[in-house]
Amino acid sequence: MIAARMIERKRDGRSLDPEDLRAFMLGYLEGRVPDYQMSALLMAVLFQGLSPAETGVLVDIMVGSGSTLDFSHLGRSCVDKHSTGGVGDKVSLVLAPLAAELGLCVPMMSGRGLGHTTGTLDKLEAIPGFRVDLDLARFGEVLAEVGCAMTGQTEEIAPLDRRLYALRDVTGTVASIPLIAASIMSKKLAEGLDGLVLDVKVGEGAFLPDLEQARALARTMVRIGTERGLRTVSVLTAMDRPLGVAVGNGLETAEAIRCLQGEGPEDLRALALELAVEMMSAAAPEGDRDASRRKAGEALDSGRAMERFERLVVEQEGDPAVLEDPSALHTAPRVVDVTADRAGTVHRVRPRVLGEAVVTLGGGRVRVDDTIDPGVGFEVLARPEMTVHAGDLIGRVHARDESGLRLGRDALRESVVIGDGPPPGQLPLVLETSRDE
Amino acid sequence: MIAARMIERKRDGRSLDPEDLRAFMLGYLEGRVPDYQMSALLMAVLFQGLSPAETGVLVDIMVGSGSTLDFSHLGRSCVDKHSTGGVGDKVSLVLAPLAAELGLCVPMMSGRGLGHTTGTLDKLEAIPGFRVDLDLARFGEVLAEVGCAMTGQTEEIAPLDRRLYALRDVTGTVASIPLIAASIMSKKLAEGLDGLVLDVKVGEGAFLPDLEQARALARTMVRIGTERGLRTVSVLTAMDRPLGVAVGNGLETAEAIRCLQGEGPEDLRALALELAVEMMSAAAPEGDRDASRRKAGEALDSGRAMERFERLVVEQEGDPAVLEDPSALHTAPRVVDVTADRAGTVHRVRPRVLGEAVVTLGGGRVRVDDTIDPGVGFEVLARPEMTVHAGDLIGRVHARDESGLRLGRDALRESVVIGDGPPPGQLPLVLETSRDE
Repeated sequence: MIAARMIERKRDGRSLDPEDLRAFMLGYLEGRVPDYQMSALLMAVLFQGLSPAETGVLVDIMVGSGSTLDFSHLGRSCVDKHSTGGVGDKVSLVLAPLAAELGLCVPMMSGRGLGHTTGTLDKLEAIPGFRVDLDLARFGEVLAEVGCAMTGQTEEIAPLDRRLYALRDVTGTVASIPLIAASIMSKKLAEGLDGLVLDVKVGEGAFLPDLEQARALARTMVRIGTERGLRTVSVLTAMDRPLGVAVGNGLETAEAIRCLQGEGPEDLRALALELAVEMMSAAAPEGDRDASRRKAGEALDSGRAMERFERLVVEQEGDPAVLEDPSALHTAPRVVDVTADRAGTVHRVRPRVLGEAVVTLGGGRVRVDDTIDPGVGFEVLARPEMTVHAGDLIGRVHARDESGLRLGRDALRESVVIGDGPPPGQLPLVLETSRDE
Repeated sequence: MIAARMIERKRDGRSLDPEDLRAFMLGYLEGRVPDYQMSALLMAVLFQGLSPAETGVLVDIMVGSGSTLDFSHLGRSCVDKHSTGGVGDKVSLVLAPLAAELGLCVPMMSGRGLGHTTGTLDKLEAIPGFRVDLDLARFGEVLAEVGCAMTGQTEEIAPLDRRLYALRDVTGTVASIPLIAASIMSKKLAEGLDGLVLDVKVGEGAFLPDLEQARALARTMVRIGTERGLRTVSVLTAMDRPLGVAVGNGLETAEAIRCLQGEGPEDLRALALELAVEMMSAAAPEGDRDASRRKAGEALDSGRAMERFERLVVEQEGDPAVLEDPSALHTAPRVVDVTADRAGTVHRVRPRVLGEAVVTLGGGRVRVDDTIDPGVGFEVLARPEMTVHAGDLIGRVHARDESGLRLGRDALRESVVIGDGPPPGQLPLVLETSRDE
């Protein structure tokens, strides 16, 4: 394998010999192939793609570069859910304890906020004391104790993926479907799962807004998982508007807690139930989906999912007091109502402008080592197709100071598009589900 | 300028702010932008191209990264010729002393063999003792003394180009027209020229075989030069067959000497005269081209161009004895005649197979630090459209040993395509000439 020749082959759109690609990747891992050849290859991949065989080689080397977990001794089916990220997406906080309550083992390794989206780890850290830096031993203990555990990706899991992601981040090579798919799936395959549910977002607030691209990503990930014996299901879900009402870390955590207590908002509850059914199905494909859905609803309404979450919070050293009063998570000192400045019908609630505003308000990171303000964000009360009069409440801004309030109000008014005549169609909450190919 | 954002812009086919590109390139030069971001940008450029403005920024930073020469004190017009490289192209050895004899100053900085082509420096080194590593002071002295000087690119000339070329070479990013154009022109602009003639090869033996691509390269280079006040002419010339009879370093040098003595081969002499006229024209656009052509022919026929070359050889420490007897440069111990294995018409003499065979015989480099054998190569006597009988001489192989002879004979027979019926058309020696846009 001559690295330069291999880069040229990919550049010219010819297929790579799997053994050559393996040698290139192992050479990178072992320091013989330098970063500048890897970044050139990644850029060529961005333009020319990767075949299924090439993607598979990459995934296998990523998984093999680190440890693979195994929780089979716990005697439960291990199933995880991964979302490609969207605005207001706090489903993981609801779903992990819910699925654990339904009898699954959920070893969830999550990420931080990225771009215009908040991240599960940041939301968990809004709970005072909550630790998301468990080592693998403690992770296993919490999992055995609670049935779910939620932590950040440890150093041991797919270290090659972490190195490649850092390189892609600074070389304009993130936006490649096979590279995104390989990155996600390498981490999930290392978790030692029996089943995986992928929530692939579609619409303006998603990283791949276009349906065809989201579908291609979903297909690629399902194929990678299925070929490796992991029962993988993808669900394409709506991200043409925020999910739920709360946008911003602490506000989203509070909303997830209310959902675990059997409250809404309706779309969050519906999506959590849908994904819980898919997780049950991934664990037991022959199971009764209607029964799963009923059980999941009961777990929320009875407070049992909430109790499970409380055990998780305690095990991971969080302060359970906020569970009694989620509004304790509304920590921003300034809150202001925002009203409609005209009458009409809500045509759209644009998610991206809200997500970007949360970052500007201090609730996201511009640089990797920025600390975030968990209190800031939005309650978005306007929903698409709602009729409003001038002066009607459309939402609230939670900010640190006066300039944040102004910025947040402008963003909310920009997001909530009020028009005349009938609104354009919205995406259904769940667009489509696909299992293997 | 955020490097990753700039790479993304180029990746997406959007134009770069010239100031951003300048900052990126200067950052690279000064060590703030790492190789892995540069190679990712270069790969994006390979797919998306560079606008004229972007190319200009790159050229100017390359030129400004080193010294710029100035020979105006010599009181002669300084004109150089650059060839994009082909099989059997030994024109520089004829043209530099010829143009000097015609009153020009020719500060020629040349290269080594690359891929399937031999290089001017390697050909000059076939002359025992000839030094091609002159420092700038000595280069200026030879130029003042002889009117021409021939050396390798020194460290002082466009060091950024040298760094980028080394990076492109190992990252699959050589084959980009704007990058090739910027690399060539940065070196030539640093030579402090009044005029430049570009011999852009077209056909199978060229690096850009396709006419449209060669034309695009020529246009890009002419524009770069013209915009910077350098009178630049491009001449597209035939490389669908070797130039002249000799292919291989010492054999080519011997052929160039014979041409300087007023002998052929016809195509080499014709191209040298054509390019000499263009060099005179670049120096004095209003000059009489017919008179230039006549003077150039006389300079060859009278032996004055040869005397000029002899002075160059002596000044650059070469042994002038080989000029008396060029066959002294035929140093390979084994020479064998190769005959036609069938009757017919020569349809093609394919240059690339011969060029690649010279490398295999030891007359080119596989790795940068390989030493080369100047004696090996071919005399290609068959010409397209020639009628041959089985057993007719089509050429000779010069090799180090028996296995080289066999390999060379096979290559020559593969190169000389003998067919029935009329041969396909050949490219005219000179396809087209273009000055500014």
